[in-house]
Amino acid sequence: MAADSSLEFLKSVKGVILDMCGVLYDSGEGGGRAIHGSVEAVKRLMDSGLMLRFCTNETQNTRERFVQKLRVMGFDISVSHVFSPAPAVVQILQKRHLRPHLLVHDDLIPEFDGVDTSSPNCVVIGDAAEKFSYQNLNEAFRVLIGLEKPVLFSLGRGRYYKETDGLKLDVGVYMKALEYACDVQAEVVGKPSSEFFKTVLNDMNLQPHEVVMVGDDLVNDVGGAQSCGMKGLQVRTGKYRPSDECDPSVRADAYVDDLSAAVDAILTNR
Amino acid sequence: MAADSSLEFLKSVKGVILDMCGVLYDSGEGGGRAIHGSVEAVKRLMDSGLMLRFCTNETQNTRERFVQKLRVMGFDISVSHVFSPAPAVVQILQKRHLRPHLLVHDDLIPEFDGVDTSSPNCVVIGDAAEKFSYQNLNEAFRVLIGLEKPVLFSLGRGRYYKETDGLKLDVGVYMKALEYACDVQAEVVGKPSSEFFKTVLNDMNLQPHEVVMVGDDLVNDVGGAQSCGMKGLQVRTGKYRPSDECDPSVRADAYVDDLSAAVDAILTNR
Repeated sequence: MAADSSLEFLKSVKGVILDMCGVLYDSGEGGGRAIHGSVEAVKRLMDSGLMLRFCTNETQNTRERFVQKLRVMGFDISVSHVFSPAPAVVQILQKRHLRPHLLVHDDLIPEFDGVDTSSPNCVVIGDAAEKFSYQNLNEAFRVLIGLEKPVLFSLGRGRYYKETDGLKLDVGVYMKALEYACDVQAEVVGKPSSEFFKTVLNDMNLQPHEVVMVGDDLVNDVGGAQSCGMKGLQVRTGKYRPSDECDPSVRADAYVDDLSAAVDAILTNR
Repeated sequence: MAADSSLEFLKSVKGVILDMCGVLYDSGEGGGRAIHGSVEAVKRLMDSGLMLRFCTNETQNTRERFVQKLRVMGFDISVSHVFSPAPAVVQILQKRHLRPHLLVHDDLIPEFDGVDTSSPNCVVIGDAAEKFSYQNLNEAFRVLIGLEKPVLFSLGRGRYYKETDGLKLDVGVYMKALEYACDVQAEVVGKPSSEFFKTVLNDMNLQPHEVVMVGDDLVNDVGGAQSCGMKGLQVRTGKYRPSDECDPSVRADAYVDDLSAAVDAILTNR
């Protein structure tokens, strides 16, 4: 690919952050499958000398299990390079001496090992899927409404996602439900929160303008990164829709067909 | 009770609308129990020559079963005098040729007898309680998101209510969830909707300023009635909280201890 003047902003890039689901792989039965060209594209980035980190709102697995799942698809990624909401909220809980009531997926529970969950004084919700029962939601609600000042953390704020058996409601929907029930505003941990992206930037030891985020989600990936001062590329895979390219509120710095094309653009224009 | 100058607004009253749960009875095991003095207070109103109607957001029973439940507690009320959201939404559905996907309590289903629910082009949610499962909510969501212009009806917009085994999330919470998921605004059928109160006024053939609403819910009963031009009395039973009397957004025309005191005030000052 020849250098493209509209991609001149890539000249100063020293680091890349990749969203995972919809960029590296499509989720589905048996854990999903790699998107064509992505395994090789990640390898090229790793060999390029650019800093590389991964940033996901995945909360149905611990990072260890998640990375293992990606390994099976052919991605060789270090757990320490993956940033997800659960470890981030654990840091916040410890810093603020909060004891959570957890409404999260069973497979995420090990991320909270060592966290005191007795006499909860806040609620943490993740993508709990089937665990979002009427009873479990009532329980989380009762904890919140019983607090003098309810504190609710939401691991991401997604509306819905696609699985092989159809669209599924995501954590943001249940966040809105509890917000209304308790007249409270949730603290979102994960994309598109700036705090979350800054943790990744700190780990890379880079300035925002030196980093480009590649994602399939216009609001959470591209918009979130841009709010931090980073550049945002949107790939036309995963949850991308053609209407994203004329969205009135968020405009990606560039649109590319897939991760392979994104890596071409980055390596050619840096 | 002597006539009270602050209650002079009751002079022009020709009709009364009573909220039911928290005014006539407290809900709970075995259907609940009558609030002290309420059975006799309803009788006095019926014998007073004032028009009397009942207005509830109850959606866990058909009106027939609901009135039967009240009969057991000692209230002798005619089904045709009870206004609830389900019959109101059925009228709207028929008028607008809409075929609903129903996410409502099993015991409410008979209210929709004769309503075409094939190839749904809208969603109706009520207080479905245990039926608010992740799977059922996903199903309702998929119907909505599959429509060119999603139409969502919510039978009331309550946040929560109290039962003997604790606080329970109400339909409004799930309305907010689906609103966020589909980026749509629900049409609320039931209190505090003005359309709903107007149906009751039409049935009484009275003007708004001739009618007083008595309820325990400051927003849905008192505020809703006032928005229509009616007067609103709040009783200090049911979900009443002392903080209601200094609420910044809604101020009742009077606060009284219970329905018995409300009827005293109305009959003495008219």
